[in-house]
Amino acid sequence: MSQERDSDVRMRGFANRVTVEHALAWLDAELEARIGTGPGVRSEMVPLDRAADRVLAEDHVAGVDVPSFTRAMMDGFAVRASDIQGASPYNQLRLVEVGVSMPGRGFAGQTGPGQAVRIMTGAPLPEGADAVLPAELVDWGVDGKSPWAIGEVSVGKHIGQPGEDISRGQTVFPSGRRLRPQDIGVLSSLGVAEVQVICPPRVRIVITGNELLAAGSPPTGYQITDANGPMLDALVARDRGLAHNPGIVPDEREAIRKALTDEADVILISGGSSVGEEDHAPGLVAEMGDLPIHGIAMRPSSPTGIGTIGHKLVFLLPGNPVSCLCAYDFYAARAIRALGRLGREFPYRTVRLPLRRKLVSMVGRVDYARVEIVDGQVEPLAISGASMLSTTTRADGFVIAPSNSEGWPAAAEVDVFLYDAEIVVS
Amino acid sequence: MSQERDSDVRMRGFANRVTVEHALAWLDAELEARIGTGPGVRSEMVPLDRAADRVLAEDHVAGVDVPSFTRAMMDGFAVRASDIQGASPYNQLRLVEVGVSMPGRGFAGQTGPGQAVRIMTGAPLPEGADAVLPAELVDWGVDGKSPWAIGEVSVGKHIGQPGEDISRGQTVFPSGRRLRPQDIGVLSSLGVAEVQVICPPRVRIVITGNELLAAGSPPTGYQITDANGPMLDALVARDRGLAHNPGIVPDEREAIRKALTDEADVILISGGSSVGEEDHAPGLVAEMGDLPIHGIAMRPSSPTGIGTIGHKLVFLLPGNPVSCLCAYDFYAARAIRALGRLGREFPYRTVRLPLRRKLVSMVGRVDYARVEIVDGQVEPLAISGASMLSTTTRADGFVIAPSNSEGWPAAAEVDVFLYDAEIVVS
Repeated sequence: MSQERDSDVRMRGFANRVTVEHALAWLDAELEARIGTGPGVRSEMVPLDRAADRVLAEDHVAGVDVPSFTRAMMDGFAVRASDIQGASPYNQLRLVEVGVSMPGRGFAGQTGPGQAVRIMTGAPLPEGADAVLPAELVDWGVDGKSPWAIGEVSVGKHIGQPGEDISRGQTVFPSGRRLRPQDIGVLSSLGVAEVQVICPPRVRIVITGNELLAAGSPPTGYQITDANGPMLDALVARDRGLAHNPGIVPDEREAIRKALTDEADVILISGGSSVGEEDHAPGLVAEMGDLPIHGIAMRPSSPTGIGTIGHKLVFLLPGNPVSCLCAYDFYAARAIRALGRLGREFPYRTVRLPLRRKLVSMVGRVDYARVEIVDGQVEPLAISGASMLSTTTRADGFVIAPSNSEGWPAAAEVDVFLYDAEIVVS
Repeated sequence: MSQERDSDVRMRGFANRVTVEHALAWLDAELEARIGTGPGVRSEMVPLDRAADRVLAEDHVAGVDVPSFTRAMMDGFAVRASDIQGASPYNQLRLVEVGVSMPGRGFAGQTGPGQAVRIMTGAPLPEGADAVLPAELVDWGVDGKSPWAIGEVSVGKHIGQPGEDISRGQTVFPSGRRLRPQDIGVLSSLGVAEVQVICPPRVRIVITGNELLAAGSPPTGYQITDANGPMLDALVARDRGLAHNPGIVPDEREAIRKALTDEADVILISGGSSVGEEDHAPGLVAEMGDLPIHGIAMRPSSPTGIGTIGHKLVFLLPGNPVSCLCAYDFYAARAIRALGRLGREFPYRTVRLPLRRKLVSMVGRVDYARVEIVDGQVEPLAISGASMLSTTTRADGFVIAPSNSEGWPAAAEVDVFLYDAEIVVS
């Protein structure tokens, strides 16, 4: 089907439009049923150097203490605290330096009475010592050869105990934790080489349309080059799904039916999802599974459908690229992110700014208005280009007008979802 | 050197501490000199399916019109507007249906006077026709076989002109554009198969320390497993740099010197960067290049150094993992992101929330305070664990106290930089 056919005014055939809230509630219930923590959750073992930003599939329990030995927390001398009790600048006490303890290379001997071992931060505390005398509490006396304590320290001072940072048996990260760079550092310090993480949801992208040429081909004659496939590939990657898009599917019932049997967690169908002559997809989904939602009170994307085929969640995305993007972000992104245990909200940074001119919306539907930010104000884009993808590349972001809103007058403050998180709005 | 040796209180040796502002200004000047648009900027051609999130190295000019032909913007009948002038429900005008125009498959013939071609949205407008009569302005008359116009349309109505979305020769995206999913869609619709993008900066990660075991090894004896290498790998990937970390470098002058000669845009050195006995790195950088910054008035990370070796920007990151993370985020992340043409700001979402208890900071230095968010309030983490990486994994984010601040009392609102952009704060 054409990428432009779902004109917003053509609503015939969508007799049972539902509200956006209804569609989201239905979707969330389906997601809850699929997420759980049961044996159905797919997970995989990955090496630590590929684990950043992945989501743990199970609690991670520390197998060792960090640190694993008693260590110095400052540079100075390992001593017996009792030996230097009462030391001060006016009561300097001489120590006998018997060795050095370096990080990774401890002092092999004992620290006996009156003895001291030069020690660096992180180095193991020698046997016999029970405190670290910091370098600034040491004077080198008249000969410059012997360390003299010019202050005292209590037992255990400037010492890190085993397990002080992380103790063996402790749950370091709970299941569901999205691993940050510093988490990778902590896991590495525990000696962990690989972790069990949630598998990304598998997303089958089904692009149909006899007028479409594969991405990478120049448009020729009356054929147009597929925009939705490459866009959806990038969107699914953004939402950490695993996209599978083996090429354009002919606008034929059997070819589409076959694509819908592919193994996946989510199916995205673009094109052939409206109610026109060659729209095979809705009938097929209803026949092979269930299509409870088809037609949503929003603009654009009103022809969107959501259903299931077995455990697979199926999204009928409009062929028009703007509608396709909007429907993807409202529904499919939410599902893919939730199945991957990420947040369900729009993955866009928001900024609150005043409108430069009024933004009109219709009561009874949710409006997705693309806007530019001009001199720190929000400028709605002309609605005439509603079906043109270039409006979403010209736009800096979008504003959502809820269904009970008639829009806002000029100067009203609105929340803008920024398409590019890198945009700096001063 | 030890990963824990740069205790915050030990400032001896850093005689020439600079302010954070000074360090950032110096760094920004170096970055400006390196970014420019000259021939020194490295770029590469990548296929469109790997171009999302990459930054264009040159303006992209449309090579074709989109659409490339005149097309219907609604479902209905392609007509000559003059034929149905004056049509209304009370003045129905009969048309002769002579064919069908489908997306990708136009009607081969002419539309003559009084004739109409059934047309779908996106399908090419047949020759002779000059408007589309929408389906809802058509009645099927008594026999149900002939379309009757029950309304009129003006010339050009519901028609999309060639180049209306994007016109040939137009600059679609400027150089420096970070490509969004919809940009990939637009480029695909132009028939583009590959684009020239900025190369990611090459980042050589140099981890030194004789006490360190390679990531993936369980800590044994007095050896500890490297935390900073895997953490920095993940941080560099987050900031879209290309990390090169071939393994731990022995704490020997010659081994470190050799690592510093590796080809790269940025060098990160962790360990061996303080002023202790075996700290070879600062001297080597000063000798091989320039080390104007060593010691910064901030906590943690005060031992941080920044310099250059030829065109390479060199960062001496403290061995303590918390300091390493903080120094990386303040300086190295900024450089890597700028060299890759991304925003220089912290790549963390912020949220403004009240403090649960007072947050103390020292005038004269910038404080990086890790905090938890508890019941919508900001809880500073106990400072005793300052050197423990686990404080950055327990924390939800951090608050920056500027050098002129003594901190804030309880209930004051502060900006929290969230470590995990996925955290939803209600």
